[in-house]
Amino acid sequence: MTLPLLALDPARSLTLPPPDSASADTVEILVGLFLLLLAAKVGEEVFRRLGQPGVVGELAGGFVVGPYALGLVVPGETALVLSEIGVVILLFTVGLEIKTDELLQVGRPALLTAVLGVIFPIAAGTAYAVIAGEPPATAAFVGLALAATSIGITSRVLTDLGVLDRRFGRIIIGAAVIDDVLALILIGIVSGAAEGDLGLATLGLIVGAIGFVGVGFAIARRARGLKREVFTWPLFADTPLVPVFLLMLGLAILSAFVGLAAIIGAFVAGLIVAETEAQDEIEHEIKPLASIITPFFFAVTGAQLDLAALADPLLALSAVVLALLGIATKVLAGLIGARGAGRWSALAVGVGMAPRGEVGIVVVTLGLGLGLLTPDLFSVVLVAVVLTTVAAPLMLNVVIPRAAAEADAAVPPLEPGSAQAPGSG
Amino acid sequence: MTLPLLALDPARSLTLPPPDSASADTVEILVGLFLLLLAAKVGEEVFRRLGQPGVVGELAGGFVVGPYALGLVVPGETALVLSEIGVVILLFTVGLEIKTDELLQVGRPALLTAVLGVIFPIAAGTAYAVIAGEPPATAAFVGLALAATSIGITSRVLTDLGVLDRRFGRIIIGAAVIDDVLALILIGIVSGAAEGDLGLATLGLIVGAIGFVGVGFAIARRARGLKREVFTWPLFADTPLVPVFLLMLGLAILSAFVGLAAIIGAFVAGLIVAETEAQDEIEHEIKPLASIITPFFFAVTGAQLDLAALADPLLALSAVVLALLGIATKVLAGLIGARGAGRWSALAVGVGMAPRGEVGIVVVTLGLGLGLLTPDLFSVVLVAVVLTTVAAPLMLNVVIPRAAAEADAAVPPLEPGSAQAPGSG
Repeated sequence: MTLPLLALDPARSLTLPPPDSASADTVEILVGLFLLLLAAKVGEEVFRRLGQPGVVGELAGGFVVGPYALGLVVPGETALVLSEIGVVILLFTVGLEIKTDELLQVGRPALLTAVLGVIFPIAAGTAYAVIAGEPPATAAFVGLALAATSIGITSRVLTDLGVLDRRFGRIIIGAAVIDDVLALILIGIVSGAAEGDLGLATLGLIVGAIGFVGVGFAIARRARGLKREVFTWPLFADTPLVPVFLLMLGLAILSAFVGLAAIIGAFVAGLIVAETEAQDEIEHEIKPLASIITPFFFAVTGAQLDLAALADPLLALSAVVLALLGIATKVLAGLIGARGAGRWSALAVGVGMAPRGEVGIVVVTLGLGLGLLTPDLFSVVLVAVVLTTVAAPLMLNVVIPRAAAEADAAVPPLEPGSAQAPGSG
Repeated sequence: MTLPLLALDPARSLTLPPPDSASADTVEILVGLFLLLLAAKVGEEVFRRLGQPGVVGELAGGFVVGPYALGLVVPGETALVLSEIGVVILLFTVGLEIKTDELLQVGRPALLTAVLGVIFPIAAGTAYAVIAGEPPATAAFVGLALAATSIGITSRVLTDLGVLDRRFGRIIIGAAVIDDVLALILIGIVSGAAEGDLGLATLGLIVGAIGFVGVGFAIARRARGLKREVFTWPLFADTPLVPVFLLMLGLAILSAFVGLAAIIGAFVAGLIVAETEAQDEIEHEIKPLASIITPFFFAVTGAQLDLAALADPLLALSAVVLALLGIATKVLAGLIGARGAGRWSALAVGVGMAPRGEVGIVVVTLGLGLGLLTPDLFSVVLVAVVLTTVAAPLMLNVVIPRAAAEADAAVPPLEPGSAQAPGSG
């Protein structure tokens, strides 16, 4: 009694939609979602049993059932939306773990890492493409595709390894958020320039983006100690979850409207709730949602990985070189930007900034659409983006335990003169 | 700073998709989902403050923002799929509250109520349509549209009022499940007949439907006392949630493939998990998912309520008469089928079977598609379905407390000779 057989037999021969609100289409979509979730979890299981990061397994699972491998699932509208809600929830949970005070403490190294982590890859990518004979606008776009960090991939690894509360963890998150804002502004400028449409719109983007993050941060500062009742006064809110979920989704949408990524708004929502008395309860309640919906982000990202360019040795070589450039420049940015945090910690920051993930995929797809990237170049840059995405978690798995050990050695767990109780160390 | 202004200004003038995995479409869909959830919750709040059932408020909220009122949201693919997952989760949680033993105890009244609750409305609806001059096939379809109960609406009211563990609550759930299976088989037969396609396919549907429910029930009986580790052995399963969610979705899909509604499979999955040691933990973990996703079911159902026919007095009168027939026949079925349970309890069972909800909507839409219902008749039956859906929770709100009081009076909370500790009464 196999599923495909059933799929082809009685339901179809009746030519009837299953007579509840589920049309035949809805059931087909549910099958796709089921396969994506199952593939992500089987992939995670296999990779973790091999001692590798679960997130790479989720990407691999999505790739395997996706259109560029077995072709069992082609992510459609619903899978893409669930993927987006998944990464929104992920970044919300990251913000939920961080106090604004702690972000301000790492402000300098995070800012420096982010700025260098945008400048270096753009310079290297542009130089590489110019040397390869590409026109300047195209070369700039190749550089740009290497600039944006996928905060989603790294956040997941940091969460899995339980190091979000480490100093280097905070630097990575702070730097990745700043990097995202910078990269999105640059992408807006380059795309605007490519379409001959610059000036006021670009200014609006810059003001909107910086204004949104600034106002969000200021609200988080003022949210400190807000009572749980701020969220639970409605009768429908037995717990703060539904109002907080609406806040998260609302800020994610607002953030997209001002030209930023939706995840930036979700992160800001997390920062705000983190300061309130509802933090503990929300942390507990958001987990089941995250564990079901977030895997769609990784599975769908995996399903979008087109590795066709790897079949041509020359293109494959170009992609590998570009990926190495992409990783090396981010590592360099981390080593310089976070040099005060210790050798391994600075390395962890650099590697943490390396995955380009879905942001890189969207940038290269945009470049193809704008006519700035030829199909060959598109494939090369795309595979380079994929390689950074898969390599980064594998490298973090090695680097982060060392960075954590280094930090433990530098700062004894129980500081003398600290007001903390021994149990909280 | 209003949202619509932002929507029209910087993001659009840049002609850029927000450069993460969210395309402009994805953001638009997120806005729609945000509005549906917000409307459902505001609707619930208003209705509950007026002392009315929250579920009617969620329906009303969806209706208000939906295409037949303000037109702010037209539920698309993603909203429909989330609605389906929402009702799947709802029926799973209902199954999770019920032991198979308790279902078997109410087997007789449930079966009788279900059978009469299908026969009476079909007879009354058909008779009404024949008297109104409709051809026999059309008349039969009108009867059919009155036969199927929306277990979703009633489950929600029973859950809200905390009476799922009452005898009459179990009778309603048992009867509604049997009623769903019967109605789906009849719909298959009538549609097959209308398309001249009967015989083997119908037999397959009947065997598949009864076989699925039978096998699922047998598995639930054998699942008693299964250890938590059955679900948590994978490394990815810190808790049983993800494996159980996959089981739920898998059985929902399988159920749709054999020609039943997806919710029947979800209910069976709930029955199975209810017998295992993971029940408590899952009950706790599924709540956040239910509180975010289930409202989409009610909001989307509300958004599908086309009340246009109410503008024409004659059609409106026909719809009201048909709705009254629909409610009266289900109430009669309950009064006869559950007569042993007490007067108010039997009435609660009948009223609990009255809402036709999304099942009725799908049946009339199917009738329109098959050419069995004229547009006018479609509107009349649709409005009748809507009226039963809105009236039933309002009536249950009055009847159920009386049924509960009657049951308390008949059976003292602490039965002599019971092995239960006083605290569990």
